[in-house]
Amino acid sequence: MARLLDEMVRLLDLEEIEVNIFRGLSPPEDRERAFGGQVAAQWVVAATRTVPEDRVLHSLHSYFLRPGDVNVPIVYFVDRIRDGKSFTTRRVVAIQHGEAIFNMSASFQVAEPGLEHHMEMPEVPDPETLPTWNERIVAMFGNKVSERVLRPRAVDIRWCEPDPERPRVGQEARGEIWMRCDGELPDDPALHTAAMIYASDFTLTETVLRPHGKHWIYPGVMTASLDHCVWIHSPVRADDWWLYVQDSPATGNGRGLARGSIFSRDGRLVASVAQEVLIRTFDERDSAKGAKS
Amino acid sequence: MARLLDEMVRLLDLEEIEVNIFRGLSPPEDRERAFGGQVAAQWVVAATRTVPEDRVLHSLHSYFLRPGDVNVPIVYFVDRIRDGKSFTTRRVVAIQHGEAIFNMSASFQVAEPGLEHHMEMPEVPDPETLPTWNERIVAMFGNKVSERVLRPRAVDIRWCEPDPERPRVGQEARGEIWMRCDGELPDDPALHTAAMIYASDFTLTETVLRPHGKHWIYPGVMTASLDHCVWIHSPVRADDWWLYVQDSPATGNGRGLARGSIFSRDGRLVASVAQEVLIRTFDERDSAKGAKS
Repeated sequence: MARLLDEMVRLLDLEEIEVNIFRGLSPPEDRERAFGGQVAAQWVVAATRTVPEDRVLHSLHSYFLRPGDVNVPIVYFVDRIRDGKSFTTRRVVAIQHGEAIFNMSASFQVAEPGLEHHMEMPEVPDPETLPTWNERIVAMFGNKVSERVLRPRAVDIRWCEPDPERPRVGQEARGEIWMRCDGELPDDPALHTAAMIYASDFTLTETVLRPHGKHWIYPGVMTASLDHCVWIHSPVRADDWWLYVQDSPATGNGRGLARGSIFSRDGRLVASVAQEVLIRTFDERDSAKGAKS
Repeated sequence: MARLLDEMVRLLDLEEIEVNIFRGLSPPEDRERAFGGQVAAQWVVAATRTVPEDRVLHSLHSYFLRPGDVNVPIVYFVDRIRDGKSFTTRRVVAIQHGEAIFNMSASFQVAEPGLEHHMEMPEVPDPETLPTWNERIVAMFGNKVSERVLRPRAVDIRWCEPDPERPRVGQEARGEIWMRCDGELPDDPALHTAAMIYASDFTLTETVLRPHGKHWIYPGVMTASLDHCVWIHSPVRADDWWLYVQDSPATGNGRGLARGSIFSRDGRLVASVAQEVLIRTFDERDSAKGAKS
């Protein structure tokens, strides 16, 4: 899958239209709307290009406002809202067809020493012993699922479930997933961070749905990311395995919140994630209700 | 303390300068900088004033950019970035002395049915059996701490620690705290949400510092909120007790992340919180280093 990863890296190399204005493309995939992780990673690249090199991204907050159109470029406007001595803050709005489709704020910081602690990584099976994304999906649902679900991906994603089973009501709202970029990335720390942010939009929805015996690939289930927040505690190598531990505190009113903790393979907590997803369940015969509005 | 709560309610009743422009004051307290919770609550009020009444706040993401000056009003500019069928999104920037001091995005939603689950509330002692804020501080540090620390507050805050002890290295990065507004609030759901957001900026820093045997009231410890994110799962009565369960996944590079889960007294998870705080520890004789920059 190194070809897909190369393509992802190419998509993250945005075109600079003017100072503070960038343009990015979506991959030539068969998708209804742009993948949130891709746009989040492009935002990060756009914001990072406007920040001095001694500052490292430590957090971002974002809202997905409208579905991204994969057929036209996305234009990113950067607002340099603050340049402080230690912290730099940027706001980025992504535009298509004259409308804001995404909105992000991000903060960067110079290196400084400080107190250190972090949560412990849970014990899980090694990634090499676990089924791949496609093996797991086929084990759960058979091989008649759509090609969109089984398409090749730039990220290798392995749930810590040696024997995957179909969703059933009452499962714990929890997931433990190994991930890594499927190929080698250039030695650019900002690119590794952007790639991890890209991948961090995967699998959270499944964790939110687990207690309800439902899955996002089922007909009659419509899901979409509403927001995405990431706090980066220390640098990560995105092309080496990292463990994404997820839980879902609550669903209600058509929304579900997921939280994630990302550990490097050697057990360091490198990032924390929060995302709210829209979940609509409806009768298949009445599928128009599923559209995000 | 009903007088202080009345004052808080009055401060949340912003003056409308123009469509999308509001002005708020800080309380006449002896403070170095505006209290983040107050400004976050005022933001929410400003954003809510521009949203149709059938939409309820379900999330907000914010950054604290510069210290707020308590001696001059804060002006809030609202950007109506999206008015959708089900969701309304607002961006708010708070200005003082010509500069952005805070930056928030918030999302509102019409009511819709959906899947429901939530985390369980831990078992803790009843709030009535626990020491008050001041009783706890005096038990921990004696009664020589500054008047600023012991000043009356609009919120009754009770840590689930019947026998408070001084911070010591190795404590768990966790806190369980009962809170409620100290008095009765008018029956306006948006006001109760704003009051909970006001209070949600308390106590997180203490949780982050716990494993390190330090406290924010110690000389040589400088702390400040960097951001504040809240997801609201269901309505809350802010003048009845709620339980704020907190942990800190990580500290490093001068920052610490805290997560919070807010339960109503009957055990429903009503909100989730994430906040990163700046933590600088330094030699007392060299206190200039502590300034946020």
